[in-house]
Amino acid sequence: MSSSPARARRADARRSRAVILDAAIRLLNARPDASVDAIATAAGVTRQTVYAHFPSRQRLLAAVLDRLTEETVAEMDAAGLDTGPAADALLRLIDAGARTAGRYPVLMQVLSTLPVPAEEDQARHTAVADRLRRVIERGLRTGEFGHHLPVGWLVTATITLSHAASEERTAGRLPDEEADEALRISLLRLLGAE
Amino acid sequence: MSSSPARARRADARRSRAVILDAAIRLLNARPDASVDAIATAAGVTRQTVYAHFPSRQRLLAAVLDRLTEETVAEMDAAGLDTGPAADALLRLIDAGARTAGRYPVLMQVLSTLPVPAEEDQARHTAVADRLRRVIERGLRTGEFGHHLPVGWLVTATITLSHAASEERTAGRLPDEEADEALRISLLRLLGAE
Repeated sequence: MSSSPARARRADARRSRAVILDAAIRLLNARPDASVDAIATAAGVTRQTVYAHFPSRQRLLAAVLDRLTEETVAEMDAAGLDTGPAADALLRLIDAGARTAGRYPVLMQVLSTLPVPAEEDQARHTAVADRLRRVIERGLRTGEFGHHLPVGWLVTATITLSHAASEERTAGRLPDEEADEALRISLLRLLGAE
Repeated sequence: MSSSPARARRADARRSRAVILDAAIRLLNARPDASVDAIATAAGVTRQTVYAHFPSRQRLLAAVLDRLTEETVAEMDAAGLDTGPAADALLRLIDAGARTAGRYPVLMQVLSTLPVPAEEDQARHTAVADRLRRVIERGLRTGEFGHHLPVGWLVTATITLSHAASEERTAGRLPDEEADEALRISLLRLLGAE
């Protein structure tokens, strides 16, 4: 049984970590080159406290990416994966993902250039991919989606096209609405949806 | 009018640069972590000569990427962009691209993790994208491909899906033939080809 002071210390550490992450997300989305010092100031802690939680700026950015992934997955789960036509559910999932990304446009740019170890990247993708797979498998099962393509590939292609549409939007090559519409039509075609 | 010795010096420099690039491509595809020293040795030149052409290992890798892009574009041009059904021409283009990449599997992995300035990346993509665009525009014009999607987006989506299929293959998540077939079906669906 852990002592009360030890529990309190752990709760403190969790809170302090969360406060730093909140500040990092807020600040990096406004100033993508914000230093660890600036993030510490925004969080109201010392630079040493930041480094106690995140040994490097890169580890801090990786934790930010984890936090945004959790946020995305929570929005996806709230979107109703298992109700209504599979194509509609899939588009709701994609919207949920785009909404999170849309809240942090500058930050998403920073994170997209972050050199991330492949395994970590895989773990983050798995949470998102599992939800897409569930909906795509349902659509294949009910015959709403055409066959002839492996489900794993359809998941990959869906994620890939979503990222591409988001990049087209961010780079200003497609206006927001056209990018949404292009992605929607592309996914329905790719999935062989009627 | 430039003097003959100056011309000879420039021709020497071009040859020396080409020899270094050839050696770099060969060696990096066998040993992705090969040092500049090892590349110099393989090219039969001094380390100083390599650095005279390429101020850093990263600049050398960027030049390798340029060279492979040229090779890809040359194969694409030989594939007959303007003959036969547009869908067949597009698949020939994709095959030509995959063939170049397939010759240097290890090197392509190295290059895919290279931090490349966005403008340079854009320039390399433009050469490839221009050729895809030509075939896609032809298919849209003749009615072989379905409308409702902007041609720029179709080019981006085609490139994106090709890269994704190649990654699935490299990562061993899809056997070569299944990856080729998945890409082929996906592109035809995406383009709304009959």
